[in-house]
Formats: sequence, structure tokens, C-alpha cells
Amino acid sequence: MSTHPQTEPPWKAIALRKQASRIKALHEPPSTSITVPHHLLPHDPPTPNHGPEPVHHIPNQLLSAQDLTITSLSIPDLLAAIRAGTYTTTSVTTAYIRRASIAQQLTNCLTEPLFTRALAQAAVLDRDFANGGVLRGPLHGLPVSIKDGFNIAGYDSSIGLASLCFKPATANAPLVDLLESLGCIIIAKTNIPQTLASLDSVNNVFGRTYNPFNRLLTAGGSSGGEGVLVAMRGSAIGFGTDIGGSIRVPAMCNGVYGVKPSVGRVPFGGQQLTGVEGMSRTSVQAVAGPIARSMEDIECVMRELVPRASLFGEDCVPWNSEWMGVPLARDPGTARHKFRGSGPNGEFVIGVLRSDGNCQLLPPIARVMDEVSGALRTAGSKMNVRVVELPTPKAWTKAQSVMSKLMGVDGGAEMSRMLLGTEEPLVPWMSTRFKHGGKAQKLERVAEIQAQRAQLEREMLRDVWGVSIDEFGRKKRGVDAIICPLASHPVPEIERYNAVGYTSSWVLFDYPAGCVPVRELKESDLEIGKPLDTSLDVLGSWDEKSRELWDESKTDRKVYQNSTLSVQCVTSRLEDEKLAYVMALVDEAVKGVQAREAKL
Amino acid sequence: MSTHPQTEPPWKAIALRKQASRIKALHEPPSTSITVPHHLLPHDPPTPNHGPEPVHHIPNQLLSAQDLTITSLSIPDLLAAIRAGTYTTTSVTTAYIRRASIAQQLTNCLTEPLFTRALAQAAVLDRDFANGGVLRGPLHGLPVSIKDGFNIAGYDSSIGLASLCFKPATANAPLVDLLESLGCIIIAKTNIPQTLASLDSVNNVFGRTYNPFNRLLTAGGSSGGEGVLVAMRGSAIGFGTDIGGSIRVPAMCNGVYGVKPSVGRVPFGGQQLTGVEGMSRTSVQAVAGPIARSMEDIECVMRELVPRASLFGEDCVPWNSEWMGVPLARDPGTARHKFRGSGPNGEFVIGVLRSDGNCQLLPPIARVMDEVSGALRTAGSKMNVRVVELPTPKAWTKAQSVMSKLMGVDGGAEMSRMLLGTEEPLVPWMSTRFKHGGKAQKLERVAEIQAQRAQLEREMLRDVWGVSIDEFGRKKRGVDAIICPLASHPVPEIERYNAVGYTSSWVLFDYPAGCVPVRELKESDLEIGKPLDTSLDVLGSWDEKSRELWDESKTDRKVYQNSTLSVQCVTSRLEDEKLAYVMALVDEAVKGVQAREAKL
Repeated sequence: MSTHPQTEPPWKAIALRKQASRIKALHEPPSTSITVPHHLLPHDPPTPNHGPEPVHHIPNQLLSAQDLTITSLSIPDLLAAIRAGTYTTTSVTTAYIRRASIAQQLTNCLTEPLFTRALAQAAVLDRDFANGGVLRGPLHGLPVSIKDGFNIAGYDSSIGLASLCFKPATANAPLVDLLESLGCIIIAKTNIPQTLASLDSVNNVFGRTYNPFNRLLTAGGSSGGEGVLVAMRGSAIGFGTDIGGSIRVPAMCNGVYGVKPSVGRVPFGGQQLTGVEGMSRTSVQAVAGPIARSMEDIECVMRELVPRASLFGEDCVPWNSEWMGVPLARDPGTARHKFRGSGPNGEFVIGVLRSDGNCQLLPPIARVMDEVSGALRTAGSKMNVRVVELPTPKAWTKAQSVMSKLMGVDGGAEMSRMLLGTEEPLVPWMSTRFKHGGKAQKLERVAEIQAQRAQLEREMLRDVWGVSIDEFGRKKRGVDAIICPLASHPVPEIERYNAVGYTSSWVLFDYPAGCVPVRELKESDLEIGKPLDTSLDVLGSWDEKSRELWDESKTDRKVYQNSTLSVQCVTSRLEDEKLAYVMALVDEAVKGVQAREAKL
Repeated sequence: MSTHPQTEPPWKAIALRKQASRIKALHEPPSTSITVPHHLLPHDPPTPNHGPEPVHHIPNQLLSAQDLTITSLSIPDLLAAIRAGTYTTTSVTTAYIRRASIAQQLTNCLTEPLFTRALAQAAVLDRDFANGGVLRGPLHGLPVSIKDGFNIAGYDSSIGLASLCFKPATANAPLVDLLESLGCIIIAKTNIPQTLASLDSVNNVFGRTYNPFNRLLTAGGSSGGEGVLVAMRGSAIGFGTDIGGSIRVPAMCNGVYGVKPSVGRVPFGGQQLTGVEGMSRTSVQAVAGPIARSMEDIECVMRELVPRASLFGEDCVPWNSEWMGVPLARDPGTARHKFRGSGPNGEFVIGVLRSDGNCQLLPPIARVMDEVSGALRTAGSKMNVRVVELPTPKAWTKAQSVMSKLMGVDGGAEMSRMLLGTEEPLVPWMSTRFKHGGKAQKLERVAEIQAQRAQLEREMLRDVWGVSIDEFGRKKRGVDAIICPLASHPVPEIERYNAVGYTSSWVLFDYPAGCVPVRELKESDLEIGKPLDTSLDVLGSWDEKSRELWDESKTDRKVYQNSTLSVQCVTSRLEDEKLAYVMALVDEAVKGVQAREAKL
């Protein structure tokens, strides 16, 4: 569509210049980065088709013993070590920067390396700490990464679009100010998909982010760079955003933990948007949240962040009680009694949801759901947990379509303008899904969709949260939390992720939801469903596409090796502390966290 | 605009039929209602111009000693008396019905008397209680009223529009189910203005509701019937809705307490709307909340209602801690330490806001603000309170206009359709303010207004809530609550209420806000500002109109006799428990509640 067919479209030169400046930032200051030896690099130069060889272990071959120790500590242990003077913030920041640099070279997960800025801040923290042990905040010295869209004054928030490159932000996002006020050091911004509306993190400016466990599989998106960097231990914790599943899906794809809170827990403002400002308040709001390697790490950070959020973000609600996520395995005695559940004897009642009615579960997903619900049942009396199977609520089935309509109300007009401004083409996956020339819906139509949403919310209240009757004939909650799949399929190949209803629905309802990695997919998992059970009804075109992912005539199942099977936990609106609790319960019941820890 | 100029427009016959059915319901069952003797009736038949003679005392001349006692008890004492067997629910319900019936004849505050339904429910409660002391719920036997818009199965929610008469609701609103599950008896629905978008409760179907203290003054709106019925002690507590001030303004006009909670505290659904369903989710949501005669009464009901709200309304948030409104005067020892305030020594910091920058305060309002802030300063050390004067934040000044744009995004198209369907004319006040043929705004325009709103929210966070810095250089809240006027003027004459920015802004920001009556307006108040101080800048056309209300060439100030001066309390989003606390603090400091109690 170039108006100058003879010349290069403007986006190309911009993208090349941006890539050059990223390389410069990656090696600056020179002492902190490590160049991956050529023979270890899985791609030279990056090509779209790599093999399944994992790269996540390569940093271990390159880093010093101290850097390895630092980047292996849990967040509570790391913070304690800094406070004890065992490590300076500079040495911690340097170790993480080295690892992030290696991760970048192996997986292409960064957009803006902030190494120079991070080390300058680390020096200030070290100076203050040396002067009488002054701490910047409760997370003094913690290396953190954030998704590219969050503004940092002086740096781009290009979200992979040429038209937004070299237009540095003039102010920090509230989340950035909040993290830094707590003592965090932000070491990098991370890669995302073009338009932010897909689950493969690829764009024309920065290219594709690869899955470090199997580069044939997707790294997920839209917070794909976060999922990868955290899994590579290139940052201690990362913050992404989620509307269709953009925190939980990359967590699932990279075998880490991801939490999409309720609206209002983590400041969302100060981001580069893909549409006009204010549009999300007419339709549906994305949410910011953490990706990390354990519930303990998430708990340690959120406990400090959430109660202060409403001082920084006008979109945040106050939090009067403690953020109650609990590392059960470490503290089994106290944690479990924090919630009196809805069961007759105060049991914490967990409802199991399986198929969402749009896609049948593929065999490995059905199996892991059996394993997790079985483990919870087994651990039930010890944990004071009760597990109940729930029928698929019709409202959940309908939610995927209502959510999809609501996410699309602006017609992509602003995104279109940004792309066409530099004659930037759509990436292949988007080319069949994004249409230029779209228009915003009429307000009456948006109201109609909002009314459908309200109706589904009422049905969920009635059909899922159960609402049983107490001894006085009064309503009480029937279920405290839900476990369900994150998708009908395992971590799929690049550009084959199918249907987001399993994750997007919980944003429509504004229910907090999180990804808990359970275990690695095993050889034996590949044998189940041979031949594929054809007795199950095909539920529609989404289901048909989903089946292809386990159908041996369409997919070589071997491609799934080295991927992780995960489960999703969900609670009711603003019950974020219950979400952290149930994620920790699942974690303890299945001990999936240990399997993953052992692997890294 | 009738298409049949020879015949009556359809709305007239409908309105007459509806009025007849209201009279029937008022006298049914016959034993419970009292017909006001002709000589006591202030109007026969109602005419638009009545005198200033108060009618609020008339029920005292007609009721039995027992009915007077029952309708004079505080809610905690009433509930205790029912539980002790001193009064049956039937006798309590009957007493309140008698009083409501008198109130209706004197002020025209009811739309749907529910006397027969209420007595049938009371009989069931009495039967269960007689059978082993079974209580329906913690509010067993409490007589309650609700604004006309809330659906009750089998009864109209006509909101005063002919086109909605004789179309009974098929299901209860969640708030109705919630109140009844707690043991409340709903005895009546109450009157509102045509379109719900004005502050005088008058419509073509039910006519005008009158202020019982001075029938030349407005009764307020849109929950005008609630304000009047509660002030007349015709129900123990009422529930209205508020978007521009529709709970707080009638509370102010009738000298009672009104709380507009944050969105999500009280179920809002199941109401007859004035626009299409779902529209409020694109723009701004009205809120449901209580009107009552004391903070103690509000506290007693909200403590039970709020924690259960999310089981009934899909629009409600969970509430993990107690609703902490505190009747300080009764329990001074414990209450005041529930909040550690933001002051250096844990003082509860109250910021004083005066003019909103759109209308200067008229002399009696400036005086009552001085009195209240002075009383708080005097009581300060005893109450551990600190009072600080705040400069007018620019965002507050701008909020009135942004809120007005946001409330009007649907262009009144649906309301227009409902009016034209029966050829119903606009009431005089609306006729210059409502335009037929309006259209919904474009979605992009609504997004633009929402972005303006978000910007104002950020400014309020920065400029009002203060955000001071703690010993670690971290942000902390600077102010715990605000006190400000409810309007620039005292309770005005019918159809002279001017500008709603003092109340509507807090809905734009979703800050909880409430009305505390302070004291009666005195003869001596009428003398201040003689001649009117003309040195203050005229801030604009709203200000000009406001000044006319104290300008002796435009208004005979004597008209304000028997009205109450009130103050507004405001806290930050979802800090509803702090709102109840600061309202109780103000109440204790000024003892305004006692002045009002003595008067009734």
C-alpha cells in the first residue's frame, strides 16, 4: 500500500535503527553484559524455524558461581541477603543483567534494556545502605522487569510499532513509580506482539520472542517477553498486562506463575495504548499483574505493592487487609486457617470446571485436571479443602463471544492509523485477523453488549458461586474458588494457539485468575488418545481447530516435549487474596513447583 | 404533539387510573391506614402553591401512644424490642404503615403502597418467631421503604411515566431479595421526578412530593419520596439511588442522613432504567444507598447488608472486614481507635473544602462550614482528629462539567420514546431542559470524556488526597476524609435548586459521600450578608443563579424558615467504612442530630 512504490516504506529504516539502538543498550555499560559464544547461540541470525532444542540451561554454563547463586535465590531470600549485606544491590543487579542479556541473545525477549539506568539506581541504593543501613523500601534491591507498554521517562514505549519508536515517554507509569518507591530496580522492558492482540510475541520492530524450553512452541503473549525472561531467571519478577490471557498464557507457555488480579489491585495507567485513551472505560479494562517463579515470590512482592497501589494509581482500590497469598509449604501451620471456607465445617470449597463448552479438553489437559483435582481430594482433609465437580455453566460458554465483541468495539481504528503512518505491514498471523478501515461501534451497540455481560455475571453468581443457604435460610457462598484449564490444549506450536475463552472470560467477569504450573509433559502423555476419541461432539469451529493440535494427521505430538502442563485458579471479584491462597493450595497439593525448580 | 387533537392524549387516562389504584392500595387493608382529618390536611385538593406551614408534626396528633413509641425508637432499639417480644412484627409494621399513610396524605411521597404485602409477610415472621423464636434474619421485622425504580415482582416500577404503568415487574431487584433475606419488611415504594434527572420530585402520574417542614421549599430528588417518608418517620430506613446527588440532596432537603456508597456496596440491579440497559457501563453508574434518621440507624442496617451484597448483586464487591460505621456518642471508647489516621500521631486528618470554584458559598453555608470545622477543631484532641483547610482543587471545579457530559451520553433517546409513546408532556421544569430528538454520542466521544475523567481522578489523587511522604521517602495518604457543602445555597424553593457539582462530582470519582444534618436555619442566619457581599467574583452563570437565592431583590429570605443546614462528608474510593466513621465524628462534634431529634 506504499504511496512510494520505488522507495522502502518508512517503517523499515525505523525498525533497523531501533534494533541497532537496542544492541547498543544491551552492551552498555560493557562490564555487565555477557555475549553468548557463537556455538551456543541457537540461531545465527534468527530464522523463523528453529529446532526443539531447549536453551534455558545455557546461562548456567556462562555465569559465575556468585551470579548463579544470586539468580537462584527466592525473592525473600534475596532481599534478606541484601539486607544482611551479603550482596550489594549493584552485584545483584549486575548478576540479573548478565542473565537478562544472555536470555535476550537466546530468545529475543527484551525491547528496552535499561541496564545503565538500573546500575545508576543500584549505586544510589548501595550508597544509602552504606550510610547507616538505610533501605529504599521493603523490596530494596529487587531486580524487576516490565512489559514494553509501561512508560519510563526518557525511554520508548513503542510496543513494537515503528510509528512509536524514538518518541520517549515524558513521565513514569504509576506502576513504575510504585515499584521504585518500594526499592525495586527495573532492569528491562520486554517484548510483545504487534497490536498486543495476539498470543505470539512477534512484531516488525523487535522480531519474535522464542520459547526457551522448545523453540518450536510459542512463547505466548502478549506479555511473552516477560514469561520468557522470568523463566530464564533474567529478572526476579515481571509485570505484564492481561485482557485475553496475556499474563496467564505466557506463564503457561514458559512454566511459571502468573496472576491476573481484579481491576484496581495494580496500577494500570501510564501505558502506551493500542487504541484511544478512555476507550477501555466504555468497554472492558485490561489488568496489570505479576509473573514469577513461585507463589512465594509473588506473595512477597504483592504484599508490599497492593496496599500502596491506591496512592499511585487513580485506578486502584484501597486494600485494608493484608494480601494473604501464602507459601503453604513453608508455613503450613498458620496459613491454612486464614480463610474460613464455605463448607459445613469451614472447608475451603474448590469447584472443578472442565470444558468451557466451546472446546473439548485434549487428553493431556483432561489428565492434568484429573491429577490436580485428585491431589486436592487426597490432601483434602489435611488442608481442610473440599473438592466439588461443577457442570459447565452456560454463562462461561457464552462469555468468550461477548468478551471478543467487547474487546473489539473500537474497530482497531487507532491501531490502523499507527500502522499505516509508517506503511508498516501486518505480521503474518495478524494479516488474516486484523482489518484496516474498521470503525468504532455505535454507543447503543456497546451498551447492548454490556447488558449481555451483566446478564452473564448474574448467571455466574447463580450457577457457579453457588450461593447455598445457611441455617437461617440466608444465602451464603457455595464455592470459594475454581480450578479449570488455561486452554483446551497443551503449549502449542508457534501461531497455533486456539481460542482464548478459558482465559478471557475471567477478565469479562473481572474475576482474579492465575496460572499454576503443574508438571512437565511426559513421553507417556503423548500416548493418550491414540487414536483420538471421536465420540465427543465437535462443539464448533474452535473445537475443530483445537482437535487438530492432538490429531496425529495434523500435528506431530513430539513437538510438545519439554513443555509444561498447568492449571488455572479463579476466585470471585476482588477476592485476590483468596486467589493467592488457592494457588498456593494447588501448589502444595501437586508439588508442581518442585518439578520445575529441579529442571532449571 | 398529539396525532388526535380532538381526543385526550393516552397518558392522562393512565395516570388517573394509576392514581385511583394508589388510593385503593393506601386504604387496604382498611384497619391499617388512618385518614387525615380534613382540617389538618394542608391541601384539598393539592395545588401547586402551598404555604410554609410545616406538616411533619401532624402524625403525632393522630397516632396512638404505642404507634408513636414504635415509630420513635432507633433501629437497634426497635429490633431489640421485637426480639424481646415487646412488639410483634405485625404491630411494628402496622404502626409504620399508619404513619406512612398519613405522610402520603400530607406530602404525596408514595407511589406504590405495599401495605397488604407487608402485613402478610409480617404475619409469617410472627408465626415463625412464635414457633421457637426463629428470626428471619438480623433485621427481623424492620419496616423499610425503597425508591420507585426497584422492582418488586407483581408491582409496577413506573417511575412516574404513564407508559410504564400497569406493567408489573416479574422478579425482585437483588436489593429487595437481600433486604427481605435479612428480615426487613418493605412497606412502600416512593416518589421520584419525571426522567429521574431533576431535584424536584414531580411527575405527571403521581404529582409532586412536598417538603414536610416547609411546603414552599423543595423536597429534593430524585429520591425525594424517600427523604420525606423517612423524615416523617413513615419508614425506619429507605433506599434511594444517587448519580447527581439523588440520595444526598433529599437527605439535605429533609434534614436526615443519606449515604451514597462507592459502586459495588449495595446491589443496584433490577431497576427500571431511564435509558437502555448496559448504557451506564459505558459512562457512569448510579449507586444505591440508605437514607435514615441517624448514623446509628444506617450503621445498624449497613453492617448486615454490605457483607452479603455480593451474594445478591453481580455488581457488588465482597467485603471482608466489618462495615465500620460507628455510633460514637454511644460508644466513645472503642470506636475512635478503629482507624489509625494519616496524621503524624495517627490523627484522623479531615480536609475542609469550601467553594467548588463554580459557585461561591452563600452566607449561611459559609457559616455552617465554619461551625462544623470549628467544632471538629475544638473536639480535635479528644477525638484524635486534625482539621486542615484545602485549597479548591482544579479537578473538582472541572468535574461538574465532565460529569454532566457523561450523564448525558445517551441523548435521552429511550426516555423520549417512553414519553412520546403516551403523548406525555414534560413537566414544566424539564420542558426547558430535556430535548426530544436527542441521539447517543459517538463511542469515540464517550472515550474522550472518560479520558478527561481519568485525568481528573489523577489530579484529585495528587491535589486532594495529598499523598505525603513517610520516613522512608515512600508515599502515604495526606488526608483521610473531606468535609464540604452539599450545595452553595440552603434548601431552596421548589424548582430553584442550582448546580449539582457539589454532589455529582463525587459520583464521577466514585468516592463515597454522605449528608449530615447540622442544625436548623435560624432567624439570625437570615440577617447575614445584608447587603449581599458583591466583592466576590461572579464565577459564571451558575454562580449568578446561586446568588439570586440570597439576593433580597430576587428572594424573600423568610422562605428558608424551618429548613436544615447540612454538611457533606467524602472519603476516597471504596473507603465506605471511613465515610461512616467521619460522618459519626462530625455528628458527635456538632450534635446536630440532637437538634433534629428534638424537633420531630
